[in-house]
Amino acid sequence: MKRIVESIPNFSEGRDPDVLEALRRAFRSVEGVALADDSADPDHHRSVYTILGEPEAVLEALCKAVRVGVERIDLNHHQGSHPRIGAVDVIPFVPLQGVGLEECVALAHRLGEWMGGELQVPVYYYEEAALVPERRNLADVRRGGFEAIRDNMLADVRQPDAGPGRAHPSAGAACIGARGPLIAFNINLTTNNPEIARAIATRVREKGGGLKGLKAIGVDLKAKGSAQVSMNITLPRETSLYRVFELVRLEAARYGVDVAESELIGAVSQEFLLETVRYYLRCHDLKESQVLENWF
Amino acid sequence: MKRIVESIPNFSEGRDPDVLEALRRAFRSVEGVALADDSADPDHHRSVYTILGEPEAVLEALCKAVRVGVERIDLNHHQGSHPRIGAVDVIPFVPLQGVGLEECVALAHRLGEWMGGELQVPVYYYEEAALVPERRNLADVRRGGFEAIRDNMLADVRQPDAGPGRAHPSAGAACIGARGPLIAFNINLTTNNPEIARAIATRVREKGGGLKGLKAIGVDLKAKGSAQVSMNITLPRETSLYRVFELVRLEAARYGVDVAESELIGAVSQEFLLETVRYYLRCHDLKESQVLENWF
Repeated sequence: MKRIVESIPNFSEGRDPDVLEALRRAFRSVEGVALADDSADPDHHRSVYTILGEPEAVLEALCKAVRVGVERIDLNHHQGSHPRIGAVDVIPFVPLQGVGLEECVALAHRLGEWMGGELQVPVYYYEEAALVPERRNLADVRRGGFEAIRDNMLADVRQPDAGPGRAHPSAGAACIGARGPLIAFNINLTTNNPEIARAIATRVREKGGGLKGLKAIGVDLKAKGSAQVSMNITLPRETSLYRVFELVRLEAARYGVDVAESELIGAVSQEFLLETVRYYLRCHDLKESQVLENWF
Repeated sequence: MKRIVESIPNFSEGRDPDVLEALRRAFRSVEGVALADDSADPDHHRSVYTILGEPEAVLEALCKAVRVGVERIDLNHHQGSHPRIGAVDVIPFVPLQGVGLEECVALAHRLGEWMGGELQVPVYYYEEAALVPERRNLADVRRGGFEAIRDNMLADVRQPDAGPGRAHPSAGAACIGARGPLIAFNINLTTNNPEIARAIATRVREKGGGLKGLKAIGVDLKAKGSAQVSMNITLPRETSLYRVFELVRLEAARYGVDVAESELIGAVSQEFLLETVRYYLRCHDLKESQVLENWF
């Protein structure tokens, strides 16, 4: 059985087709690495890549793409609706098969050492890769965004875990971590009022009394003329996709608003899609072994 | 790439656990054959097996199981709510990978020759394996059931395509065919009135002005205290699972009845499940490549 690690690097570039293509090329240039998905959003001004492969191959592909990102993305002229602190904003490692979380922590630290030394970009380790408890939560690390990093990095609380003690002039800083699988799930509403998206996000997320393991923010998708509830389902086995969808719909109804469409970002385990089918078709006995493709 | 054929043999036994276990054992006894799914229903008095493998291996496994079925199932004492003409009632071959429909027709004919000669069970070839157009449609071949076969087989119209010119005394006759993939989908209603299930079946199926390629009958599930709409979706690429589900629900509403639960019988292609997820989550861009397991 092959050992497989997943990484879902997020870059603060969602518009320039040349940069997006250069990043895809970098990921694809390493033998044994699959680019399972990539998506770019001009409003978020962000692109997300899902790569899979053996640990060393994934690390090599990340180094290549990170170099492209640091060289070509300048955060000083960046305006996007998604929180970010760097050109190469977030890189999580996820153990998928034959690999443990500790090994993903080690990969995160190796990538951070390289990025801090070779590219002179300060790095924060988050979630399982965090060296201090205050940096486990990504939202805390990113608070204040690029501007806080650039203007106020000398504060002790902002001293990085690897790399130089000040922000890279154009690329800011980076968050590198290790974690279990999550589902990135965005729901666009039939309104363009971001306040409604924010109010819904506040109610459906765990922090606001919503679903366990659910993180949510409201985002203004100006280019699309729509407001979005952008979510991470961090405990997808307990907090099912359909339950998140239906709860957002239910909260939206309070404003006479409905779900326009949704998007799944990156790769999703088949089991979570089957659970969605079981719910909507009321087909409780559907088994993974009934999926034809699982047999060849 | 492996050459893979699917077969979904239907036996007229859904109650006796010893016979069901003997059939499962027969399928599993052949190297290279996967028993992807099996289900038995006491009301239908019928069990359905889904096997996958290379053509010769699948044929060998079928011969073994067919012998068990002919020896151990006696239709003279059989009462079930599902139409049937034989102990080994229906055996379709379906091409899945690296195999054409013509090869499945040849497999159907080889199995029929063997069953007619070795086991002395008359065989009708249906759908793509039919030798005459009047036998393409399985419902036509099975009309009148076991009783018509047993009591009136000498009529020209009932002369079999292989095997002896009269019904096997306990096992009746068999239908063997070749066809493209279909989805067997049953919906149980919140009523035990079979007339309602029949009325819904009549309206949702193609013949009654319903969905293209949909076949449906109403079945009385006495053991379950429920009425069922039992369906085959023969064009699952055009006629999606969710549309069938929602149309049955809509027709049921006319009687104040709802869907209690549904069941998918046998193996289903992942694409059809993804289309269901796309519909219910309004997640139109979900791609097959986003299913994690498709990459290892």
